[in-house]
Amino acid sequence: MKTLETLKELTSFLLEIQHISSAAAVLSWDQETYMPPGGAEARADQLATLQGIAHQQFISPKMENLLSQWIDLKTGALLENADEAWDLQSKALLRETWRDYSKAKKLPLDFVKRMEKETSLALQVWVEAREKNNYSLFKSHLSTIIKLKKEESDYRGYTESPYDALLDTYEPGTKASQIAPLFDSLKKSILPLLEKVRQAAHPPKDEILFVSYQPDRQLEFGHKVLKAMGYDFSRGRQDLSHHPFTTSFHPTDVRITTRIFEKGLPSALFGSIHEGGHALYDQGLDPKFFGTPLGEFLSLGIHESQSRLWENCVGRSKSFWKFFFPYLQNTFPDQLSKIDLQTFYGAINLIKPSLIRVEADELTYNLHILLRFEIEKEVIEGNLEVNEIPSAWNSRMKTYLGIVPEKESEGPLQDIHWAHGSFGYFPTYTLGNLYSVQFFNQAKKELPDLLDQIEKGNLLPLKKWLNQKIHCWGRTFPTEELVRRVTGEPLNPSYFIRYLEEKVKEIYHD
Amino acid sequence: MKTLETLKELTSFLLEIQHISSAAAVLSWDQETYMPPGGAEARADQLATLQGIAHQQFISPKMENLLSQWIDLKTGALLENADEAWDLQSKALLRETWRDYSKAKKLPLDFVKRMEKETSLALQVWVEAREKNNYSLFKSHLSTIIKLKKEESDYRGYTESPYDALLDTYEPGTKASQIAPLFDSLKKSILPLLEKVRQAAHPPKDEILFVSYQPDRQLEFGHKVLKAMGYDFSRGRQDLSHHPFTTSFHPTDVRITTRIFEKGLPSALFGSIHEGGHALYDQGLDPKFFGTPLGEFLSLGIHESQSRLWENCVGRSKSFWKFFFPYLQNTFPDQLSKIDLQTFYGAINLIKPSLIRVEADELTYNLHILLRFEIEKEVIEGNLEVNEIPSAWNSRMKTYLGIVPEKESEGPLQDIHWAHGSFGYFPTYTLGNLYSVQFFNQAKKELPDLLDQIEKGNLLPLKKWLNQKIHCWGRTFPTEELVRRVTGEPLNPSYFIRYLEEKVKEIYHD
Repeated sequence: MKTLETLKELTSFLLEIQHISSAAAVLSWDQETYMPPGGAEARADQLATLQGIAHQQFISPKMENLLSQWIDLKTGALLENADEAWDLQSKALLRETWRDYSKAKKLPLDFVKRMEKETSLALQVWVEAREKNNYSLFKSHLSTIIKLKKEESDYRGYTESPYDALLDTYEPGTKASQIAPLFDSLKKSILPLLEKVRQAAHPPKDEILFVSYQPDRQLEFGHKVLKAMGYDFSRGRQDLSHHPFTTSFHPTDVRITTRIFEKGLPSALFGSIHEGGHALYDQGLDPKFFGTPLGEFLSLGIHESQSRLWENCVGRSKSFWKFFFPYLQNTFPDQLSKIDLQTFYGAINLIKPSLIRVEADELTYNLHILLRFEIEKEVIEGNLEVNEIPSAWNSRMKTYLGIVPEKESEGPLQDIHWAHGSFGYFPTYTLGNLYSVQFFNQAKKELPDLLDQIEKGNLLPLKKWLNQKIHCWGRTFPTEELVRRVTGEPLNPSYFIRYLEEKVKEIYHD
Repeated sequence: MKTLETLKELTSFLLEIQHISSAAAVLSWDQETYMPPGGAEARADQLATLQGIAHQQFISPKMENLLSQWIDLKTGALLENADEAWDLQSKALLRETWRDYSKAKKLPLDFVKRMEKETSLALQVWVEAREKNNYSLFKSHLSTIIKLKKEESDYRGYTESPYDALLDTYEPGTKASQIAPLFDSLKKSILPLLEKVRQAAHPPKDEILFVSYQPDRQLEFGHKVLKAMGYDFSRGRQDLSHHPFTTSFHPTDVRITTRIFEKGLPSALFGSIHEGGHALYDQGLDPKFFGTPLGEFLSLGIHESQSRLWENCVGRSKSFWKFFFPYLQNTFPDQLSKIDLQTFYGAINLIKPSLIRVEADELTYNLHILLRFEIEKEVIEGNLEVNEIPSAWNSRMKTYLGIVPEKESEGPLQDIHWAHGSFGYFPTYTLGNLYSVQFFNQAKKELPDLLDQIEKGNLLPLKKWLNQKIHCWGRTFPTEELVRRVTGEPLNPSYFIRYLEEKVKEIYHD
């Protein structure tokens, strides 16, 4: 039986390349947290240099030689026609490394450079267009990016839709023809639910969440929750940044950021839990596989499932707040001492259509994603023009959410993704929501006292379960296989829909 | 006339390598400021990877090809035997790049790796030995390092002393045979001065500096001074670290750190001014030459001259405090409102033999350096054994400073340098002191109202003078030539000695 020992030369080389990518990640972290403004231009050069070296090494003749000993480089098939010759891990490592390698080889260097240049330009213009609330400023840049993304699809290759080639970079193996019916069925369940919410006689109120909350205490409470979740501060830290994110340089150094609004408890609170969920995944990857696909997260959808599971299934649950609300009241006595748990619970679970995706509740969030998925798919497939995006946006907002933005900055200019060239990214958010509830449901089955433990503030059994069932496997199994191994079935949106139905019932007393 | 335009391919390659080194510097900065403890091992791997790539590229066949078009790689001489063929900057760039290249080529990769391994080990043991106050724990590691440093001298080559080869890595072109008489003459002037101080009837008192000072206000006052010095916070920042340092990733991102003792004003105050002086040099390097020797600092001695000039010639001067003392009193009214300027001025200029180099005053500091220079030179030349270092240390402490450490942690274990393999580094501190006063003296000549300006809090004319006379030149001129261009003569210790004599006279009223 051939094992990872056989592949030592390959894994050492992968590790060396990973150190370069990790160094680039440190530079990006610094860029978003502490870098003085004057350093931006030099930082872009440093990052481009490191990313260029990592890319070149990854597609170097050395890598080709290492892989071609064991793999048919054209098909990715193992040589020797004998699956049994390799153990599970080695087979997975070769499969996934080849996947990365062949993906990296497909894009010509000239194309990568053009894309970098155009997205860097588009990002600058997007910032300005958003500030000036003027989509037409951004339009021609978006056109250029879309042309390039279509070119990218051609390089990557696809059988059904050019959109698939882009989706695949974030959610390996997933196709638009799977997402579309999934999202349609979701729409069919969510829209009637939203209608119920709209007609509810006694909706909860959330004003109490938007009075003044001392920023340092917000951070302090967030730390308390993160520690309870099992986020290891000796292998991580939390800093402030404009947009919250999680980054990992190694399972021993996984950092999160947050942003704090003095007049808004949810941003830092649920943001910290959300990023903490991401961070538990990265801290839970097996360090002995670091640098190889076995030590990497599986897909953006699975990553998002971890953040959403903690943010929503745990962080917006009654069980969680039975334990933590008294501590929150203690932290903010002026604001909360006279508020009861039920009122607070209603406030953090209020469902209300809004214009901005990142501020949306658990239910309407997915409508924001559906809209973006439909638009970006049509654009990449050539069925929607760039100048038609704002009207397509508004008409779908009207249909799905019943509201229409008055400003383009609150419409198609609100997200960075398209300016960044990240087409095919949005669906992973909703996939994450679906997976999160399916996983949490399974955890409740396997850990019968899970909710009791959460009510006691003991979140570690859940963390341990996620570590063992999901985190430690890295990319050993394809997503579908992992989901089946963990939950006994493929992705099934009914868990998420039932979760929403119960939440609506509970909060809106219908 | 051949210009930098001719060398474009070379400078582009140098720039690419510099981006890698700058990335490594960002990682080191993070290591000392924000990295969680768990991340240390992965960080060491990331750093080793980046440094290895930068080194390999620097000695690559590509570099050899680029240089050998213009230079005889064996001697460093320009081809074509025609100095006039190149302009000043191109000539300097080729001269210094060849210097770096031939230095880098001299050390076998195997040796570099052994050295890295042994110093990394020695550093760990040194930390433990210092904590346990036990030199004998560290002895065998120091022996190994010294053997390796002798091996390094052989690789690097020397004509007089193996110590010269090491000194040259920090202070290019300088030899022990120049340092030794210079330091001897310094000793002959400083020891009688110290004797005078000892016998002074009314020495100043410095207790007032060691009452409690609010850390946040210490930082705030430091920022005020740094801004007045012209340190550009949009191209830099100040953070906390265990040991203060300055690091530069590009002239647009030059960062300093400090440490704060609640019960000790001098550390953060003079530390900030000191690092600010270093940072002005790095921010003052010409960005258009970034990546090449023309955009690099000249030597450690010249770098230290900039920090010491600001810390001592400015920061310990009466003129400076005439302006800043009222602000300091305002910042710390409880501690200082009843203290007069003369008392404060005496306190910050107190001369008093002490055991620890980094806490020493302007005069005795150099005796600490002399002692280290003599010991490390003897050790490298084979005239002193490793187990004789503590007794050599103590007997010289007795002779020079009149005090002897009771603990080895306050003796030869106090500095990190030897554990780190940095033999030949110490003399640059005293060279910096000598240069600093020689430069400041010249500035006073050329800017007749300099002290008046400083008294008004206007430090920018001095910064501008240093920018124009020293910073912007990078490594265009060898040190001796720069010093001659700036001051009209070579290094001359008499300026420093006269400065000390006047200070002693003023403070000790003798």
